[in-house]
Amino acid sequence: MMDIKTAVAKLDELQKIQYAYSHAMGIVFYDAVTTAPKDTAEGRGVALGILSGEMYRKFINPEVDELLTFLSGNMSELDDHRKREVELLKKDFDRTKKIPENEYVEYQMLLNEADSVWHKAKEENDFESFRPCLEKIVAFNRKMAAYYDPEKDAYDVLLDLYEEGLTQETADAFFLKLRERIVPLLEEIMKKDQIDDSFLYGHFDINAQRQFSDYLMEKMCIDRSHCGIGETEHPFTTNFNKKDVRITTNYHEDNAVNSMFSVVHEGGHALYELGSGDEHEYTAVAGGVSMGIHESQSRFFENIIGRSRPFVKNVLPKLKELFPEQFRTVTAEQLYRAVNKVEPGLIRIDADELTYSLHIMVRYELEKQLIKGTLEVKDLPDAWAAKMKEYLGVDVPDDKRGCLQDSHWSSGSFGYFPSYALGSAYGAQILKKMEEDFDVYKAVEDDDLSPIVAWLTEHIWQYGKMYAPGALLEKCVGAPFDPQYYVDYLETKFRDLYSID
Amino acid sequence: MMDIKTAVAKLDELQKIQYAYSHAMGIVFYDAVTTAPKDTAEGRGVALGILSGEMYRKFINPEVDELLTFLSGNMSELDDHRKREVELLKKDFDRTKKIPENEYVEYQMLLNEADSVWHKAKEENDFESFRPCLEKIVAFNRKMAAYYDPEKDAYDVLLDLYEEGLTQETADAFFLKLRERIVPLLEEIMKKDQIDDSFLYGHFDINAQRQFSDYLMEKMCIDRSHCGIGETEHPFTTNFNKKDVRITTNYHEDNAVNSMFSVVHEGGHALYELGSGDEHEYTAVAGGVSMGIHESQSRFFENIIGRSRPFVKNVLPKLKELFPEQFRTVTAEQLYRAVNKVEPGLIRIDADELTYSLHIMVRYELEKQLIKGTLEVKDLPDAWAAKMKEYLGVDVPDDKRGCLQDSHWSSGSFGYFPSYALGSAYGAQILKKMEEDFDVYKAVEDDDLSPIVAWLTEHIWQYGKMYAPGALLEKCVGAPFDPQYYVDYLETKFRDLYSID
Repeated sequence: MMDIKTAVAKLDELQKIQYAYSHAMGIVFYDAVTTAPKDTAEGRGVALGILSGEMYRKFINPEVDELLTFLSGNMSELDDHRKREVELLKKDFDRTKKIPENEYVEYQMLLNEADSVWHKAKEENDFESFRPCLEKIVAFNRKMAAYYDPEKDAYDVLLDLYEEGLTQETADAFFLKLRERIVPLLEEIMKKDQIDDSFLYGHFDINAQRQFSDYLMEKMCIDRSHCGIGETEHPFTTNFNKKDVRITTNYHEDNAVNSMFSVVHEGGHALYELGSGDEHEYTAVAGGVSMGIHESQSRFFENIIGRSRPFVKNVLPKLKELFPEQFRTVTAEQLYRAVNKVEPGLIRIDADELTYSLHIMVRYELEKQLIKGTLEVKDLPDAWAAKMKEYLGVDVPDDKRGCLQDSHWSSGSFGYFPSYALGSAYGAQILKKMEEDFDVYKAVEDDDLSPIVAWLTEHIWQYGKMYAPGALLEKCVGAPFDPQYYVDYLETKFRDLYSID
Repeated sequence: MMDIKTAVAKLDELQKIQYAYSHAMGIVFYDAVTTAPKDTAEGRGVALGILSGEMYRKFINPEVDELLTFLSGNMSELDDHRKREVELLKKDFDRTKKIPENEYVEYQMLLNEADSVWHKAKEENDFESFRPCLEKIVAFNRKMAAYYDPEKDAYDVLLDLYEEGLTQETADAFFLKLRERIVPLLEEIMKKDQIDDSFLYGHFDINAQRQFSDYLMEKMCIDRSHCGIGETEHPFTTNFNKKDVRITTNYHEDNAVNSMFSVVHEGGHALYELGSGDEHEYTAVAGGVSMGIHESQSRFFENIIGRSRPFVKNVLPKLKELFPEQFRTVTAEQLYRAVNKVEPGLIRIDADELTYSLHIMVRYELEKQLIKGTLEVKDLPDAWAAKMKEYLGVDVPDDKRGCLQDSHWSSGSFGYFPSYALGSAYGAQILKKMEEDFDVYKAVEDDDLSPIVAWLTEHIWQYGKMYAPGALLEKCVGAPFDPQYYVDYLETKFRDLYSID
C-alpha cells in the first residue's frame, strides 16, 4: 500500500521526467525550424522517434496507472496544486491509454505521410492527391473521440482537447453572434472607400526590421534574458520552461508591418508563458492553460493594443528612424488606418482583425460537419468555396488558396481552429474588465505597457493551468464568457474607422 | 541463453538509444551556447540532469552487462563492424561501471562547482580560490585511473581516454623531439626582423565576415545542407550524426583573420564528421575516432592548407572584395607572411603554428607531474611560469594569463592536451603520404580542394571509429607515427619564412 508522501514524491519525479523529455524534444524542434541545416530531418527523426517512445513508456505504464489511481482516490489529502496536477495527468493518462498502441503508431505514421502529401498537394493545387489522407485522418479523429468518450458527441470531445470544457453549444452561440453582426458590417464596409496602405509596401532592410523587433519586445516589457527571437517561415512561440521562451518571426523585405504584428502577437504568447507562476515549474500545471486563452493574450497585444491609435502613434517615430524613406510623410492616423484596413481575402493568416474570425468560422463549420459525417471529404472544396462566398464575399479560385491553405487538418488537428476566434473574443471581454481597474489606453498612450503586463500577470498568467480556460476567464472577468463584448468592440472600432453610423 | 541474432538486435537497439539521447542533449547544448537567452541555465540544468541519468541507466544495467559479456565471448561469430561496436561499448561499460555511483555523482557535482569557481578565479586572477577545487579534481583523476586499471600508470590510463592507445612513452618521445628542434628554432627566429601584420587589424564588418565564412566553407567543399555555422565565444564543432554537423566561430570586429582560421579549423573537424561512413550511423563506431585524429584534420586544413602560400593567394581577392579599404594594397606574399608571423605569447589559443605545440608541451609536462604527484597543485603557478620561460621565453605576469587560462583542468580533463599537438604532428605525416599520390599544393593552387577531401575521405574519414587512432594512422600512412615529419615540416616552413639557413 502506498502512502501519500511517497506518492507525491513519485508524482514530482514523473512530472520532472516529462518536463525533461519535453524540454529536450522542444529544443530539437526549435533548432530544426530556426537553425538546422536543411537536409537533417532523417537523423532527427530517428532520435525523436526513440525519445517519444521513451517518454510514452515513462508515462503509460502500470506503475503510473497505480500512482494516479491512488492519488485520484485520495484527493482530499492533497492541496489544490497537487489536485490539479493529478487531475490533468489522469485525464491525459486515461485518454492516451485508451488508444490501442498499434492504432496510435499507425496514426502517427499516417500523420507523417500526410504532412508531405499535404505540402505537395498545396504546392501543386491538387486536392485529390490529399483526399485519401484526409479521409483517414477524419476517420481516425472520429474513432479517437469515441475511444476517449463514447457517450459524448465526437466533435465536443475534440474541442475539449484544445480548449478544456468548450462545447459546440458555446461555440455555436459565439459564431452565430459573429455571423449576425460581422457579416453585415463587412458588407457595409465594402461599400466605403478603400484605405490607402500603399506606403506599407516597398523595401525594408531586414537588419533594420530585426532592430525593430528588439524595440517592440522591449516596449512590451519582455525580459530578453529569458526570451529569444528566431526566424522561421511561420512565426510561433514555444517555451521550454517559464524562464526559457522563444518567439519567431518572418521578415519580408517588401513589407514592414507583417513582422511587426507577428512580433507583437508572439510577444503576447511569450509574456503569458514568462508570467506563469514559479510554483508551477516542472509540473503539469506549468504554462498557458489552453489555445484559446493563449490566443486571447497574443491577439490582445496584436490587435487590441498593437493596432490601437496610441500604440501605432508611439511606434511611428521608430519606424521613421529605421525606414526614413518610406515613412517620412506618414502620419499616425494614416498608419493607424493602414494597419487596420479591412480587406476580405482568401488567406486566413493574411486576414485583418475584422475578417479573421470569419475565416475561422468557415473552418469551424466545415470541420464540425466532417466529424459529424454530414460533409464528405470529397465535397470539401465546394463547401469551402460556398462558405467563403457567403461570409467573406470572395470567390475561391483554387484549393491551394482554399481548403489546402492550412496545415492543421493534415496534422490531425480537428477542434483546434475555434480557439483562435474564441481567443479574440476572450480578449475583448478581458479588456472591458481591465478598464474598470485603470485607463488601459492611457497607459498605451503614455508608452508604458507595464500596468497591462502587471494586470494580466495577476489575473491570468500567474495561474498557469490551475483553472480550466472557462473557469479562468470567469475568475478574471467575474462573469461567464460572453461574445457580446467582442462584437461590440469590433463594431465600435470599425464603424469609427469607416465612418459608419 | 541468448542467441547471436537476438543479441545483435539488442545491440542495435542499445546504440540507437544512446544515439537518441546524445542527439537531443547535444542539440540542447548547442542551442545553449549559440541561441538560448542568457538566463536559461537553470531549467536546462534540470532537464539535462534527468536525461543524463536516464541515459546512464539505459547503459549501466545488468541487462546490458549480460549482453556485452555474451557478445564479447562470441566475437568470432560477429563481423568486423559488430566486433568493434562491442569492443568500444564494452570498454566504455567496464570503465563507467567501475566508478561507484556515489563517487561519480560527487565528482559531477565537484565539476559543476569547479566550472564557476574557475571562471571567477580567472576573472579575478585568484589562483588560491581555485586551488582546493583543482586539488580535488586531480585526486579524483588519480583515483579514477586506479579504478579503470590499477596495474597501469595513472597518467597512461588518462591519456588512453582521449587518444586510445597513446602512452607517455610515445608522447615523451614526441615532445622531446619538439623541444630539441623547435625551441632553438624559435630562439633563432626571435633574433630576426618581425613580420608586419598591422593590416590584419582595423575594422571588419561582421556581416562581411559572415559572407567570408560562407565563402571559405564552400571552398572547403563542405556540404551546407548538412553543416551549419553558429556564433559562440569559443569556436567548436559538434555533430549530431554524420548528416547534421555544426561549426561555430567568433567574429572580432577588429580582426579579419581570427574568424577565418577558426572557420577553416572547425571546417576540418566538420569534414571529418561529414565523411564518416554511412554504415556507422547510429552505432558506437560513428564519427571521428579521437581527439588527436580530429585535431590532425582540423589543423591540417587550418595550417598545412589554410596557412599555405597558394591558399592565402586564392582567398586574397575575396578579402579585397569584402574589405577593400583594408586589403587594397596587400600582396599575397604579405598576407602569407602576416598569417604565419611567429610571436611567442602567453595565451595558447592565440598562438601561431610554430609556438602552439610548445604551449601544449608546457601543459603536458605539468599535468603529468600533477597526476604522478611530483608536482603539488599549490606549486603549479610557479612551475607554469618556469616552463613558459624555458620553452617560449616569455614571462608570465599573472595566473589568469598563466595556469588559469584554459578550462580543461577545471572540467576534469587530464590527458586531453597532448592530443592537440599530436594532431598537428599526425597531419604532417599524412601530408607526406598524400603527396606521394598527387600534388597537394598544386590542387590548392588550382583552387580545388576536392582531391584532398576525396583522399582524406578514402584514407581516414570513412572509417569512423573502426580503428584505434594509432592503427588508423598506420593504415593511412603505411608506417607508425613518427614526429620527424612534423618537426621537418615546421623547420622547412619557418626557416624559409624567416630566411634562416
